This record gives sequence, C-alpha cells and structure tokens, in this order.
Amino acid sequence: MDENQELEERFAQLTQDLRENNIQAFRNSFLEMHIYEQGQFYQSLTEENRQLIYSYLSPKELADMFDVIEEDNEHMKEYLDEMRPSYAADMLSEMYTDNAVDLLNTLDKKQIAKYLSLMSADDASEIKELLHYEDETAGAIMTTEFVSIVANQTVRSAMYVLKNEADVAETIYYIYVVNQEGQLVGVISLRDLIVNDDDAMISDLMSERVLSVHVGDDQEDVAQTFRDYDFLALPVTDYDDHLLGIVTVDDIIDVIDDEAASDYSGLAGVNVEEINENPVKAASRRLPWLITLLFLGMSTASLISHYEDLVSEASILAVFISLITGTAGNAGTQSLAVAVRRLAISDEKDHGFVRLVLAEVLTGVVTGAVTGITIFLIVGFWKHNFILGFVIGMAMLFAITVANLAGSLIPMLMDRLGFDPAVASGPFITTLSDLTSVLIYFNIASLFMGYFM
Amino acid sequence: MDENQELEERFAQLTQDLRENNIQAFRNSFLEMHIYEQGQFYQSLTEENRQLIYSYLSPKELADMFDVIEEDNEHMKEYLDEMRPSYAADMLSEMYTDNAVDLLNTLDKKQIAKYLSLMSADDASEIKELLHYEDETAGAIMTTEFVSIVANQTVRSAMYVLKNEADVAETIYYIYVVNQEGQLVGVISLRDLIVNDDDAMISDLMSERVLSVHVGDDQEDVAQTFRDYDFLALPVTDYDDHLLGIVTVDDIIDVIDDEAASDYSGLAGVNVEEINENPVKAASRRLPWLITLLFLGMSTASLISHYEDLVSEASILAVFISLITGTAGNAGTQSLAVAVRRLAISDEKDHGFVRLVLAEVLTGVVTGAVTGITIFLIVGFWKHNFILGFVIGMAMLFAITVANLAGSLIPMLMDRLGFDPAVASGPFITTLSDLTSVLIYFNIASLFMGYFM
Repeated sequence: MDENQELEERFAQLTQDLRENNIQAFRNSFLEMHIYEQGQFYQSLTEENRQLIYSYLSPKELADMFDVIEEDNEHMKEYLDEMRPSYAADMLSEMYTDNAVDLLNTLDKKQIAKYLSLMSADDASEIKELLHYEDETAGAIMTTEFVSIVANQTVRSAMYVLKNEADVAETIYYIYVVNQEGQLVGVISLRDLIVNDDDAMISDLMSERVLSVHVGDDQEDVAQTFRDYDFLALPVTDYDDHLLGIVTVDDIIDVIDDEAASDYSGLAGVNVEEINENPVKAASRRLPWLITLLFLGMSTASLISHYEDLVSEASILAVFISLITGTAGNAGTQSLAVAVRRLAISDEKDHGFVRLVLAEVLTGVVTGAVTGITIFLIVGFWKHNFILGFVIGMAMLFAITVANLAGSLIPMLMDRLGFDPAVASGPFITTLSDLTSVLIYFNIASLFMGYFM
Repeated sequence: MDENQELEERFAQLTQDLRENNIQAFRNSFLEMHIYEQGQFYQSLTEENRQLIYSYLSPKELADMFDVIEEDNEHMKEYLDEMRPSYAADMLSEMYTDNAVDLLNTLDKKQIAKYLSLMSADDASEIKELLHYEDETAGAIMTTEFVSIVANQTVRSAMYVLKNEADVAETIYYIYVVNQEGQLVGVISLRDLIVNDDDAMISDLMSERVLSVHVGDDQEDVAQTFRDYDFLALPVTDYDDHLLGIVTVDDIIDVIDDEAASDYSGLAGVNVEEINENPVKAASRRLPWLITLLFLGMSTASLISHYEDLVSEASILAVFISLITGTAGNAGTQSLAVAVRRLAISDEKDHGFVRLVLAEVLTGVVTGAVTGITIFLIVGFWKHNFILGFVIGMAMLFAITVANLAGSLIPMLMDRLGFDPAVASGPFITTLSDLTSVLIYFNIASLFMGYFM
C-alpha cells in the first residue's frame, strides 16, 4: 500500500511537471522509474499530456516503455495515431523487433505500410521478415536482437563484442555461436564467460549440444521446452540450422497465460480474455454459444415431446429428468477437462487415443455404477418403488458412461482433425449429453413401463 | 524426430556403459547432456541401474540433475529411500535450497529430520528456515542462493565477487546491493556491470528504486509482478527490508502453471493435475463431487415431485425442463468463468464486488431476453401455442438471470470469505441453477396454467 501511495504521489508530481513545462525535472523523475511504471503513468494521461510526452522524450525512450505495454491494449492504435507518423515510425524501429511486430499486427495493412515506408530500409526489412510468420509459431514470437559470435576467438574478445551489443540485444545472458554460413553450432552463457579465463577459446568452452526450436514450431511446444529445461532464452533456426532469432522467457509467460486462458474459455463457453462491463456487449459475445446450444437443446425437447404420452401416463418420470441429465453432464465435463488437459501435455498424441477414450469409458462405468446404485437406493426408499429405482439407476449408469465417451472422444477427434480441442466447450458437452441421457432414460423407462407403474 | 532418435540412441549407449562398468565413458557422455535430459535418462532406469548411478556420480552431480526433476514426481520418495542416507543428505545440501525444500516437503517429518541431522549445521539451518514458510507464499518459492554486494566498491571488485559466487548462485544476472544491516538498498544487473567502466562505483550505477516482494506475499501476486515487469528474478525481503532470498522466473512459470491448472480443475469439478489411467482410481477421485451434486440434484427432483400433479395435468411441461435447466446452466457457467477470471487478475477486489455482480445480472437480463424471445417464437410456432411459448420464454429469462447472479455472486462470496473462488466449480453452479430454474419454471407455469392448456 505504501509503495502504491509513493507511486501515486510521483505520478501527481510528474503530471504537474508536464503541465508546467519542467522538462528537466520531468525527464529525471520519469526515466528513473521502471519502464512498466512509465507505461502505467503514460496510460493514465489525457491526450493533451501525452502530446507533451512526445515532445519531451526521444523515440528511443518512448520505445523502451512501449516494449512493456501489452500489445492487446485497446488504446494502442489511438496512441500511434496521435503521434507524428515519423516519430511513431522511429519509435517502432527502436522497439525490440518482436514487440514492434506484435504492435503492427494489430493495425490494418495500409497503416503498417505507412510506418514501414518511414523507417530505414534495414529496420523495415527486419520487421517485414517477422511479419509474415504464421501466428502462434516460434517465428511469430521470436526477436532478432540476439548476440552471436564465431567460435574462433577468446573470451576477452567475445566480452568485447558483448559490451558493444549489450544495449540493443534483448538478452545478453546467452551468446550463440555460429559458423561462416550463419548456422548455429554452439552456445555459451554469460556465466561461463565470466568464470573462465580471459584467454580461453570460445570453441573450447561452448556447448555444442545446443537446443533450438524451428521457426515453424507451435508456440505451445516452445513453451514446453522452456518448462522442461528452465531456459531464459532459446535460439530459433530455419530448417537448415541458420540462426534466425531468439525467443525469451517473458514472451513464453505470455504464451502460457494465453493458452491457459483459451483452455479455460473453452471449458466455460465464453472468452474470458475479453472481459467487458457493458452488459449488452458482454451478452452479444455470449449469445452465439447460448443460442447455438439452445437449438441443440431443442432436439432434446423434441425427443421428450416424442415421449409425452409416456410422461402423461407416468408423470413420476418427469421428476428425474434433470437429475439424470445434470449428473451425466457433470461427469461429461470432468471427462472433457481430463481429455483436453491430457492432449495439451502429451507428446505422443497418436498412441494414447484409443487408450484414453477406453480409460474414460471405464471410469464412466465405475462412476456410473456407484452413482446408479446410490440413486437406486434413494429412489427405492423414497418412492417405495425399487423397480422405478432400478430404472433410474440403470439410466444413470448408461447416461454417465455415454457422457464420458462423448467428453473424451469429441476433443480427441477435434484434435485429430486439426482443431483446438478446447473448442469442444463444457456447455456443448453437457447439452449434447442432455440429449443422449434423455434418449437412454426414456428407452429404459419404456422397457420397464409395465413393472414400476 | 531426429533429435528424439539421437537421444534414444544416446540413452541406449549410456545404459550399456552403466552395465559394463565403463565409468569414464558413462560420465563423459552423461555429464555432457543437459540436466533435464540427464533426469529423463535417470527416470527411465531400473533401480539396479540407478544404484550404479549413485556410485558413479558425486552428490553434487546428482543434485544438479535433481534440481530439474519436478518435485511432484511420484517416485521421488523411492529415489531418496534407495540412496544411502548420507549420500541423499549430501545431495540435498548441494541442491538449490528452494528445490531441496520442495522435495523435503513431500516427505514425512521423521524423514525430514533424518536428512537434516546428516547435513552440516549451516546447510540444515538454511533449509529449516525455508521449510517453515507458509505454502504458496514468496517465502516458500524463494531460494537463498543469490549474489549480494555492498555499494561502496568498484565494478571490478564486484565482478570479482561475482566470479567466486557464480557456481553456487541460482542467478548471477541481478546483483543485489545491501547495507551493513543486510537491508536491500539497490540492484544492478550484470548487463550494467559489463557495459560500464571497471573503475565506476557500484553506488553510482545501482538503481535505488529496487522492486521487492515480502516474504509472506501470495505467490500469485509475485507472479503478477513478474508478468508486469518482465523480470528474471525478484528479491524477497522481510518486513524490515532485510534481503532473505530471491524468486526466479523458472519457479514463477511453475506457479503460473499450477494456478491455471487449479482454475481449470475448479471449473471442471475434477483435479486435472492428477491424471490417472486406472479407471477405479480415477473414478474414486471424481465420485465425491458427483455424489455431492447428486444429493443437490435430488432437491431439484423432489421439487419437481412436488409439482407432479401439474405435470400429469400438463405433460407438455416435462418437455422443456431440460431445455431451461440446460440453458440456464450454460449461462451460469459463463458467468462463473468470467467472475473467477476477474478475481484472479484484479487488484481491487473490494471496489469491484457489487459492480461486477450487477454487470453479470444485467448481462443475464440481456441474454435471457434474447434467448427468451427466441424460445417464445420457436415454441409458439412449433406447438401452435403462444401462451405456452410465453411461459417458457419468461422462465428462460428469469432462470438465466438467476444463474448469472449465482455464477458471479458465489465465487465472489467465497473469495470474500477467504476461500479459493475457483472451488465454486462449474458442475456446482449448473446443479444449483437446475434447482432455481425448476423452481422458476413451475411457478410461472402454475400462474398461467389456466391459459395455455
């Protein structure tokens, strides 16, 4: 709380300095802050005050701050639009390439072309190269600001290279070793450089077993490698081992967050990343799923409608509809979550397919049997009718087993067909399982109709 | 695929070296691998071969590898048990303290005491200090292997300190500056040390605005700071600013993964982290929730039972039970997910409470109205009965609104009461909303009974 107060006071002082044209005081205090806090301050300003910032700070100084503002910030376009185009282009050139590309990707093509045309040819071509990598691949999240050296030199000369590049490189803690053709042949950490003798040769110290990812690799796989190996950065190569860039751990944290939010959103049937307090907007994003599922639910309703005579004869059957559909839906959701999670962490998608679905069905049989026996006893004693209890129990057993089958099979199939398995949302599985549960329930009830009435 | 094959061949060769007592060949090839791969190899061995490893490798060499094996590995206890106790204790001393503590925390108290008694007094007391920090706090995930220096020295002498500590420190990329009392007064990155002149004073270069976390801070808050500031490590202090340890980004990735899995598990009503292929075991973990919810579902059943006369008079009512409960359940799940997510990312829990619940209820009114009108038209035309359609539509509107209220209010209340809001699982909300939906549905139906029959 104290830190927050301190920051608030500083922000107030900075705003005053801005308004009163105390350029030097403003710059001293502003540049002393961490770039994240600079970003917080900048985003709290009115456009008028932001215009002052553009005249007080160099494009490079603004770029450092923009490097940490999330590119999915809704005002980003506004910020760029209000800067002089050449100032904005200079700032984009000064940003780390991966962040500049992320930012440009939120703009339309015409604007991208405008800013690229205002940059130096070198900067523009570096950005253009990254712009065309497919979304969610290593290429799309990598940056080109890395330090690479040749093997045939001493630690001293490598440190000299490092000193010169330290200002522009996104990380200097790994130094990548390339051959004449620019192919990755080794890696050495700054830690190794520091503890070893200045006259030692890089070729003797470097690790030749250097782990790299391919430029087209899925970002989730890259994240998994970071998790396994605890790296701070990983080199990215093309299919001929040429070093193209590096992925750093801060980008991987964003990837992990995004993937988690997307799995979570899938299970809930709502995009939790676009949180909005405007009820009409929020509703308009949730309604497509709800209405789609309403129509799927209508098929359940028309199925029950088909059995209406049965219900009017034995209205007791209506009592247990929601219990059976609800419990089967819960079991199906559990299966779905396990299947989606397992698909996310497993490397051996192809082997586990049949085994996982089978395991889920068997789990369904066990949970269904226990739940079925429980409800058999409850209904038997409650309604003094053990045949009715048997009908409900059997329906429960089969409904849960089928729900587990659907909950595991559908995400598996989607994964096989190349879709994100997390799209098979929880609400979809429960609504589908409503249909199968009702079908099972009324069929079993028809069979035993003569006995429990 | 090629890399995998290469690794498999290497593993086969290593196993052969082990069996044939080619100690030197084994050590050369094994120690050349990344510690993660060493761990993969080690875990693939039989106990007999692991025993050979213990005689070929020093405790320190094994410790490096154990640092990357996840401490929630189920065989961890087994591994420790099969080592000579003094060898295991030596290995634990050589591990980074945070990892050793994580590992010890999986053992029972008697075993912990045994290993601590076999360590040097210094190592044991360092571990003991960390052992008593509460789970999921900064103290529980921090390590004590950091580099700290005093301000009153040159870059050259700081680099000298660094060289000496580089082997034991978990990160050397941030160097923390402390005063005589051990209080944190500044930070300097290795990057700064490298680009500056050897004779520059640390006190002139260091940043005095050093961000730190308190030892009792929730690990989720620590993770949020890492996300915001893109740090590789953060210092941990006590309430009097004494530097106690550091948290590194690799531990934060584990925290983020754990929190995501726990949110996901909550929404699904099943712990997806304990994935098990044994159907009986899997079922036994899912049944507690299912049976609990079965009893909650029974109250819905007995509510419908209360209205059985109504149903036998108008069996058409049974047709729409699952449609209304299902749709309201879907809407409630969406609300729940949004509320849980918002609680996770918001710092200002207290202000947003009423506003968020209100926003969700209003969203419910909008989605309920659209869904209600849709179903009104469908039922009206399908059954040629617009009064029945009106009943179903009104029930839908109110059921969805109440489901949204429950979906947002319940996790909020749990958070207020100090529980993890993610425990209010999706299945719980849908089962609860079954009850409220049925209550709403039959009450509205009773009111209009005379008109639609």
